[in-house]
Amino acid sequence: MTTTVGILGGGQLGRMLALAGVPLGVRCVVVEPAPDPPAAVATEVICAAYDDAAALAELARRCDVVTVELEHVPVAGLDWLASRVPVRPPPAAVAVTQDRRSEKEALGAAGIPTAPWASPPRPFPHGTVVKRRLGGFDGRGQVVLAPGVGVCGVLDGLCISEEVVAFARELSIVAARGVDGSVACYPLVENRHADGILRTTIAPAPGLVPGRQAQAERIAVAVMERLDYVGVLAVELFETDAGLVANEVAPRVHNSGHWTIEGAATSQFEQHLRAVCGWALGSPEQREPVAMVNLIGTVPDVGTMLAVPGAHVHLYGKDARPARKLGHVTVGLDRLAEIEAVIATASPAP
Amino acid sequence: MTTTVGILGGGQLGRMLALAGVPLGVRCVVVEPAPDPPAAVATEVICAAYDDAAALAELARRCDVVTVELEHVPVAGLDWLASRVPVRPPPAAVAVTQDRRSEKEALGAAGIPTAPWASPPRPFPHGTVVKRRLGGFDGRGQVVLAPGVGVCGVLDGLCISEEVVAFARELSIVAARGVDGSVACYPLVENRHADGILRTTIAPAPGLVPGRQAQAERIAVAVMERLDYVGVLAVELFETDAGLVANEVAPRVHNSGHWTIEGAATSQFEQHLRAVCGWALGSPEQREPVAMVNLIGTVPDVGTMLAVPGAHVHLYGKDARPARKLGHVTVGLDRLAEIEAVIATASPAP
Repeated sequence: MTTTVGILGGGQLGRMLALAGVPLGVRCVVVEPAPDPPAAVATEVICAAYDDAAALAELARRCDVVTVELEHVPVAGLDWLASRVPVRPPPAAVAVTQDRRSEKEALGAAGIPTAPWASPPRPFPHGTVVKRRLGGFDGRGQVVLAPGVGVCGVLDGLCISEEVVAFARELSIVAARGVDGSVACYPLVENRHADGILRTTIAPAPGLVPGRQAQAERIAVAVMERLDYVGVLAVELFETDAGLVANEVAPRVHNSGHWTIEGAATSQFEQHLRAVCGWALGSPEQREPVAMVNLIGTVPDVGTMLAVPGAHVHLYGKDARPARKLGHVTVGLDRLAEIEAVIATASPAP
Repeated sequence: MTTTVGILGGGQLGRMLALAGVPLGVRCVVVEPAPDPPAAVATEVICAAYDDAAALAELARRCDVVTVELEHVPVAGLDWLASRVPVRPPPAAVAVTQDRRSEKEALGAAGIPTAPWASPPRPFPHGTVVKRRLGGFDGRGQVVLAPGVGVCGVLDGLCISEEVVAFARELSIVAARGVDGSVACYPLVENRHADGILRTTIAPAPGLVPGRQAQAERIAVAVMERLDYVGVLAVELFETDAGLVANEVAPRVHNSGHWTIEGAATSQFEQHLRAVCGWALGSPEQREPVAMVNLIGTVPDVGTMLAVPGAHVHLYGKDARPARKLGHVTVGLDRLAEIEAVIATASPAP
């Protein structure tokens, strides 16, 4: 009756996956090199590197299926696992998203618009973004060059370059695909960043023009079908005058989908487990407009946050550190300013 | 930043309290004599009797507040704890509900209608229910006598008797009271039993006449104020031609409130933690009409249940045994027949 799901990564995404699994009889076992990770609260933790042979062997032996909560895991280990136990999403899909070059190629092959890009990197007339091919996240590993500035040849093979996109705002879509190929897409959301880190998600994205949601769903479905994907995935998008332009693909549950815990009929965490366990997908229907605000670097008093009507507080059990995601709060959209004021009061001076 | 809540009892109610606590930074420590209890999935378990001195001393030392997930715990232990750490609800409130005689007296003193009752027990003209004063639950510990049948004097002091009430249906109200005396009441629900065990809760109770919800809320508030209550409490009610008649009070989260996990803005489990931790109560507002069905004695295939649109599955991690509550499923009211059909297929022949 119990289904055991192995997860590479034991951070807050693993924690929320594990919590979603408990009521379904899903037990999670995570592999995580850091001691006492957030997921430990409701999982068993194998403290080891993501490609530790003994740890992967234990996962393969004990789990019905293995998944990931982060994309930067060695693909060789995933491939080894996949020869012994279902790995969902498939290792090849994770591999594609690890390298910005193969990611762009896959998006292009799926007919999805992206910014003009080049590898090896070269400058673009309207300004250039140079991005590391491997390992970048939360705005790290990239630099914007002014128009006319050149790119040094030493970056060939290590980086790609993209043309700077003139976009109105950043959106994302979180979607899921089941073992049977069925798909479910959550509403498009708007993401607001500061210092390259997601601060706030508004769900649904306000003021969407007709057809935008449908375009985003076509993009998500095209990506998932191209990658033979199983599980939850997020596509980060730029909204431009010419429509949506894909920026990045995250092969996992995503920060911009945390609002679904209370805000949707099925949370992205339960949805991912449903998908990787081979069960029917749940409804992605949204209940009401909400905002999700990350708690970054510091956590306000819990009681003060809970005093904001409708506030749902999610702490990750992590030690406070500057620029670290320590939790999030989801509130009705009409209470966003109120919760932001509480968070601002608690934040240390910059 | 972490609040530690001690819980006497580690069953499914403790499990769901603990799961609700994780996102709030609440860590639960349970005292439970049974090995590997349902709550163990997300709590630390002190395996000991509910009045084990060393266990209670450890709770007092480690916890910010102590609560209960069952009413049948020795009050002396609660009193001892209360001299060292806040115990919510207060021990005296738990004590009142342990004895059907003191429970009836408290209801009467609060001006709440009950069936005519007697202690020592005596027969009533329209039929008599004899109930054990202590330790009864799920319909156990009581017997119905036909009109004219007498009551043996040997039961004096052990039992009370009540007149059989002609009721249309059984309802219940789950409510909460905060440290500051604020209250929040969930909608009245209808409960359907079989063999003395709750099978199905319909929320809200269909076809309520005007004023019924208000009467139930007055009853719940009167009980809570009478008991100086803090936390979530349930009042089981009979609906009669003359209005609501109180039957029992449960000083804890309640099976008839499980639907609130998905069906209300705040679940009864988070609500109880908010109350006992001294935080603001959350909104008890209901989202949509739902039904909660208990999984008793056997658990259908999880994937089959999840294939019913809108089904939310909650398993308790207990070994299957006849008449044992092993989990529950919450669905939209329009899907009740569908989920009941799934459950019926899975049940062993009676």
